[in-house]
Amino acid sequence: MAAASEDSLRRALAEKQAAADAQADAVRVLKSTPGVAPAEVDAAVEALKALKTEAGSAARRLQVAVTSNGGDGVGSREAFRQAVVNTLERRLFYIPSFKIYRGVAGLYDYGPPGCAVKSNVLAFWRQHFVLEENMLEVDCPCVTPEVVLKASGHVDKFTDLMVKDEKTGMCYRADHLLKDFCKEKLEKDLMLSPEKAAEFKHVLAVLDDLSAEELGGKLKEYGITAPDTKNPLSDPYPFNLMFQTSIGPSGLSPGYMRPETAQGIFVNFKDLYYYNGNKLPFAAAQIGQAFRNEISPRQGLLRVREFTLAEIEHFVDPEDKSHPKFADVANLEFLMFPREQQLEGESAKSMNLGEAVSMGTVNNATLGYFIGRVYLFLTHLGIDKDRLRFRQHLPNEMAHYAADCWDAEIECSYGWIECVGIADRSAYDLRAHSDKSGVPLVAHEKFAEPREVEKLVIVPSKKELGLSFKASQKMVVEALEAMSEKEALEMKATLESKGEVDFHVCTLGKDVVIKKNMVSINIERKKEHQRVFTPSVIEPSFGIGRIIYCLFEHSFYTRPSKAEDEQLNVFRFPPLVAPIKCTVFPLIKNQEFDNVAKIIDRSLTAAGISHIIDITGTSIGKRYARTDEIGVPLAITVDSTTSVTIRERDSKEQIRVEIDKVASVVKEITDGQSTWDDIMFRRYPSHTSAQADKE
Amino acid sequence: MAAASEDSLRRALAEKQAAADAQADAVRVLKSTPGVAPAEVDAAVEALKALKTEAGSAARRLQVAVTSNGGDGVGSREAFRQAVVNTLERRLFYIPSFKIYRGVAGLYDYGPPGCAVKSNVLAFWRQHFVLEENMLEVDCPCVTPEVVLKASGHVDKFTDLMVKDEKTGMCYRADHLLKDFCKEKLEKDLMLSPEKAAEFKHVLAVLDDLSAEELGGKLKEYGITAPDTKNPLSDPYPFNLMFQTSIGPSGLSPGYMRPETAQGIFVNFKDLYYYNGNKLPFAAAQIGQAFRNEISPRQGLLRVREFTLAEIEHFVDPEDKSHPKFADVANLEFLMFPREQQLEGESAKSMNLGEAVSMGTVNNATLGYFIGRVYLFLTHLGIDKDRLRFRQHLPNEMAHYAADCWDAEIECSYGWIECVGIADRSAYDLRAHSDKSGVPLVAHEKFAEPREVEKLVIVPSKKELGLSFKASQKMVVEALEAMSEKEALEMKATLESKGEVDFHVCTLGKDVVIKKNMVSINIERKKEHQRVFTPSVIEPSFGIGRIIYCLFEHSFYTRPSKAEDEQLNVFRFPPLVAPIKCTVFPLIKNQEFDNVAKIIDRSLTAAGISHIIDITGTSIGKRYARTDEIGVPLAITVDSTTSVTIRERDSKEQIRVEIDKVASVVKEITDGQSTWDDIMFRRYPSHTSAQADKE
Repeated sequence: MAAASEDSLRRALAEKQAAADAQADAVRVLKSTPGVAPAEVDAAVEALKALKTEAGSAARRLQVAVTSNGGDGVGSREAFRQAVVNTLERRLFYIPSFKIYRGVAGLYDYGPPGCAVKSNVLAFWRQHFVLEENMLEVDCPCVTPEVVLKASGHVDKFTDLMVKDEKTGMCYRADHLLKDFCKEKLEKDLMLSPEKAAEFKHVLAVLDDLSAEELGGKLKEYGITAPDTKNPLSDPYPFNLMFQTSIGPSGLSPGYMRPETAQGIFVNFKDLYYYNGNKLPFAAAQIGQAFRNEISPRQGLLRVREFTLAEIEHFVDPEDKSHPKFADVANLEFLMFPREQQLEGESAKSMNLGEAVSMGTVNNATLGYFIGRVYLFLTHLGIDKDRLRFRQHLPNEMAHYAADCWDAEIECSYGWIECVGIADRSAYDLRAHSDKSGVPLVAHEKFAEPREVEKLVIVPSKKELGLSFKASQKMVVEALEAMSEKEALEMKATLESKGEVDFHVCTLGKDVVIKKNMVSINIERKKEHQRVFTPSVIEPSFGIGRIIYCLFEHSFYTRPSKAEDEQLNVFRFPPLVAPIKCTVFPLIKNQEFDNVAKIIDRSLTAAGISHIIDITGTSIGKRYARTDEIGVPLAITVDSTTSVTIRERDSKEQIRVEIDKVASVVKEITDGQSTWDDIMFRRYPSHTSAQADKE
Repeated sequence: MAAASEDSLRRALAEKQAAADAQADAVRVLKSTPGVAPAEVDAAVEALKALKTEAGSAARRLQVAVTSNGGDGVGSREAFRQAVVNTLERRLFYIPSFKIYRGVAGLYDYGPPGCAVKSNVLAFWRQHFVLEENMLEVDCPCVTPEVVLKASGHVDKFTDLMVKDEKTGMCYRADHLLKDFCKEKLEKDLMLSPEKAAEFKHVLAVLDDLSAEELGGKLKEYGITAPDTKNPLSDPYPFNLMFQTSIGPSGLSPGYMRPETAQGIFVNFKDLYYYNGNKLPFAAAQIGQAFRNEISPRQGLLRVREFTLAEIEHFVDPEDKSHPKFADVANLEFLMFPREQQLEGESAKSMNLGEAVSMGTVNNATLGYFIGRVYLFLTHLGIDKDRLRFRQHLPNEMAHYAADCWDAEIECSYGWIECVGIADRSAYDLRAHSDKSGVPLVAHEKFAEPREVEKLVIVPSKKELGLSFKASQKMVVEALEAMSEKEALEMKATLESKGEVDFHVCTLGKDVVIKKNMVSINIERKKEHQRVFTPSVIEPSFGIGRIIYCLFEHSFYTRPSKAEDEQLNVFRFPPLVAPIKCTVFPLIKNQEFDNVAKIIDRSLTAAGISHIIDITGTSIGKRYARTDEIGVPLAITVDSTTSVTIRERDSKEQIRVEIDKVASVVKEITDGQSTWDDIMFRRYPSHTSAQADKE
C-alpha cells in the first residue's frame, strides 16, 4: 500500500512538473511575440509561479513519503539521514569538536557553511522578533552564581536519572535503557504475548512520569544490564545536568554554566521595566550559549552539551493577555495537536489560529500571537509546513505553575522533534527571584481615579500576647499575621461567638488558645491609587541548533546528474538562509575572464554579498554540483567580457546580465525584494548556453 | 602650562566652529539664490564638510586635553569616567550581572542599547574581515577537554601569582599589591629619597618579569599586608585562570571553559585547509565567548571574567609572508610605537605603514596588512585616531616562538588599553597540536617539476649493534637515528679517520663506542615532488568588550542645554554603531500625528531600521536630550500629516522630508551610502521650526 501511494505521488509530481514546464514555454513564446500586452505576460508569469509552487509541494510530499512512510520506513529514514549527514560533514557544515583528539560526545563545531547558516538564521530571528516587536535585547554571562539557579529550581531539580555499570563505572540514562528495551521487544520479539505488548506500550507512555524507585524496579524486573558489558547496574539516582565550576580563586563561590538564557532576563526585570517607561506589556530577548551536561548524548546535532538558545520573555498583565497585533496572525491555518486529540489517539489537524484562541484551545491571545509568529518564522526559513506541528503539553508534562504550553515540533528522520517551546509560565519565575533576593519584581497599574477596596486588617495585640505567651509571643504574632483571608474571617466569627479559639502555630508545633482581646480582625475600606502585581511571563524559547538541523533535512534532495550515472546532492535553502549567496566561475582559464571575475568579486563584496570564486579548471557541470551541494542559490558564469550568465540552483534556469548589473540583481534576490521568477520572466532574456547543456 | 594649552585649544575650537557656521550660512544663501550653478553649490558643500571635520578634530583634541592632560590630570580623568559610566549604567548600556543578588565581580550584562552596539560592532567586523577577506568562519564550543588546553600550554602556564590573607583567606593578585604600593609611594610620599624613588620605578618596570620568589621577597621587604585587613599575607603561588569543570557524569573527564577561541581553529586546521582546496594562505575566524577566572577583577568593563573575543588565524607559508593586498593599506599613516622608541623612552610617532614594513620595523607584509586593516576597523567604528597607537611587544613580553607582535592600544581614562593583539605566532600552535594528537597539521607545496634534494640517510646495522649491545641495542639505534645532520657528519668523518667514536646515548645515561661497521651515514640525492611544512600563524585577536568600552569614552561629550542650567550628555556614535538609528516623536498628542507615526514605524521596520517611538507628552527638548544620551543619530518629529522634520544629533540641524521618503532617507544615512551633509545641503531644504527653538 505504501508503495502504491509512493507511485501515485510520483505521478502527481510528474504531472505538475510537466504543467509548469509547458507554462514556462508558453511564457517564452509570449515574450518573444511582438505586440503582446505586458498585462498578458504578467498574468502568464503569475500562473507559472503558481504551477511551480504546486510542483514544489508535490516534490516535498513525495520525499516525505519515501523517507518516512515508505515501504521500509525506518530503513529509508536512516538511509536518508545518512545521505544528509555525509554531505553535511564532508562539506564542513559541522565537525565533531576536537576531532583530532577523538572528539567529545555531544560537542560539535559549525564549519564555514554551517556557521554562515547559523548567522543568517539569527539575523532573521532578530529582524522577525526583536525589531518587529521592539523587544529589549540583552546579553548576559554564561557563568552564573549558585544563588540564581537555586532560586530558579535548577540546582535542586534539573536532573536526569542515571544508572552506573557496577563494574566499569560507565553511566547511562535510566529511562533510555528502559525505553530501548521496551521498543526492541515490541519491534523484534515475534513471540510477545498481547498482554506483555500492552505492558511495554504502557511503560513507554508513562516513561517520563516514573520515579527513581519505579524506574529501578522496572530495570530489575526486566533484568536489564549495561548495554556495553552486560554487567549489573546500580539503582537509578539523580544526576544534575549543569556544568559546575567555581567563581573566583577562593573555591567558596560555586557557579554553573547556565542551562538556559532566561534567568538573565528575569533577574533584570526591574531595570527593564523601568527602561520601558514602567509600562506593560513588553518583551525582552536574549541569544546565547546554554549548557547541559548530558549523561550520554545521542542523536547527533539534536542532543548536545552546548547549544545556542534564542529566548523571549514577554511580560504581561495576568488580567489582560490580549495582544494588539493578534489580528495579523488570526487567519493563519496550520497543523495543531491539542491535548484532547493526543489523549484520544488522533493525529494533528489543520486549525485556524483565531478559532483556536476564541474556542479556548489556546489559553490566550498573546500565547496565540507567538504561536503564529513562530509558524511564520520557521516556514520563512524553509521548514516544510507539512512537517511542522504545534503540540500542546499534556497536563503531566507541564510544570504546576504553567497556564498553557505548546511546542513547535518538526518532523525529521529522528521523528517529531521539539524545536521551540512556547509557554505561559504565569508569575512563577519573577516570584521565585523576588522571594530569594528580597527585591520586589512587580509592576504597577496606576488607576485613573483612586479605587475603594476592601482589605483585611489583622492587628495582633502584642501586649496581651506577650503576657500569655512570653518568649513564644513573636511566633504567635507572625502566625496570626500570616493567616489567609478565609482563616482570619473564621477566627473572627469564632472569637465573636465563643470568645476564644484554638489556633495551630507551626513554628511552635502546637495549638495555643487565642482570646478575643489578643487580636483585632477587620475588613476595612481603603482608597488605593494603584494595583501592584507580579506580571505573567509568556516564553517562546528556540533551540537554534535543532531548527538548523531540521532545516538541513527539509532542504536536502538529490537529483540525477546529466550523465545519470550518479545522484547529485542539493540543499534548496532560501536565499535568506543560504550560507553563500552566489559563486563566480570564469568559463575557461583566461586573463580577460579572470579580470571580469575580479570586478564582480569587488562589486559583490561592496554590496555585502557572501560569495566564492571558483577558478579551478574543472568542468562547469562539476562546479555547479559543488555549489548546489552547499545550497548556493545563484551561480555566475563569466563567459564574455560584457555580460555573464546567472543560473538558479533548483530550476537550473539561466539569464544573461550585464557585468555592472550583476551585484544589484543578486542583491535583489537575496534580500527578498524580488524572486528569481520575477527577474527571469519579466526582466531578463532567459539563456541557454553551450556550457549549460554540458551540465 | 596645561591650563594655557587648554585655553588655546578652546580658542582653536571656537575659530573652527565659527568658520564652519559661516560657511553653512554661505551655502544656504547660495542655494536660495536663483541662477547659481549646481557645481558652485557642490564646491561650497565640500568646503563646508572639510571645515566641519576640522571643527570635530579640534573638539576631540580639547576633550583629550581636559580629560587626560588637563591641570588636575587624574582627577578630571576620573570625573570624566564617572560621567560616562553614570550615563551608561542609567541608560542600561550595561548592568552589573545578577544585581538583585548583589552581583558577581567581573560579570556584566549588556542591556538593550549596549547589546545593540555590540551586535553592530560584530556585524561590521564580519563585513570588514570575514567577507572582505573571504575568511572561513567557524563556531566551536566553549567547553573544552583538558587534552586540548594541555597541548596549548594553558593547563600548565595560564596562571597569575596569588597571595592569600593568612587569617581571612581573601585572595589578591601579588603583582597588583606590589604595583599599588610602589605607585602610592611615588605619588604620595613627599619624603621619598631619590634612591628609593628609583628603586620603586625599577620595580614597576620589571613587574611582569618577577618570579614567585622575587615577588614574595619584595612583598616581605616592603612589609606589604592584606589591603582590607592589614593581616599578613601568604607567599605568592600560581593560580590557574581557567574555569574548571567536568564533562559527562563520570567525573573522570576534566574540562575547562576556553580562555580564548583560537584553539578551536587550530585543532580544525586539517579540515579547513582541505576546505580551502589545500591552498595557502587562508584565514579562519571565530567570534565567541571566552572565560578567565580573574583573581580580583578591577577596571569595570576592561577586566572581566567572561567576554566576547573575535579572533582570526591567518595561515601562511613561513617562506612567503607577502600579502597580495598590502598595497591597499601601504599609504596609511598612524601612531606606531616600535620597540626602539619604547626602550629609548620616546613616545609613539606617526609612521607610514609601507615604510614600517619595508624598513623591517614590522616583521612582514602580512602582519603589516592586518595592522592596517585593524586601524581602518577601529577608526571606522569611531575610535579617535589621536588616541590609538600600535605598540610593538618588547622582547620580554613576547613568547619565545613569536616572530613579532603589535598591540592596538586605545587611550581612555584608565590609560592605554590593549584592545587588539596582532601576533605572528610562527608554527608554534599547529606543532603543539600535531605533537599531542599525532595528527600532522601541515601544508604541502607541490613542485611544478620534481626537485633534486640532498638528504641525510642514517642506517644503523641492527645485527652488529645487537651483538655488541644486547638488550641496549634498541636505545642505541634510536639515538643514532635521532642525530642532527651536523652530529651525523662529524661521526661519519671520525669513523672514516679513526674507525670508531665515543657516542653519548641519553636513554642509557652513558657513552658507548660505535664502530665503523655499526652504522652507515650517507648524503643521498633524491627527487622530491613536494615540500611539506607547518604553516605560520598570524593572529589578530580582538577584545570586543574593551573596544566597545573605549568607543563609549571616545564618543561621549556634554553640551549645555538651551537654558544653560544643566549639561546634556551625548554619544556621537557613527550611524553604523548607533544602537537605535532614529526616534519618532509626534509633536503633540493628536490622533492624526499618531497615525503618521504608525505609518513611519511600519516603513522603518520593513526597511530593517531599529527605532523607537516616543509618545510621552514631554517637551521636544527633553525628548531630544533622551535620544542624544543613547546616541541616536536622527530624530523624526511628526508635526504635519504630509511631511516631518528630521534632526541630526550633533549639529542639531533639521530638514523637512515627505512621509513616504523618510525610511529611505534614514536608510541611506545609516547604511553609509550618504552623509547627513550630502542630504542636508544637496537635497533637502533645511528647516528651522518653532519647536526647534524651544530645545
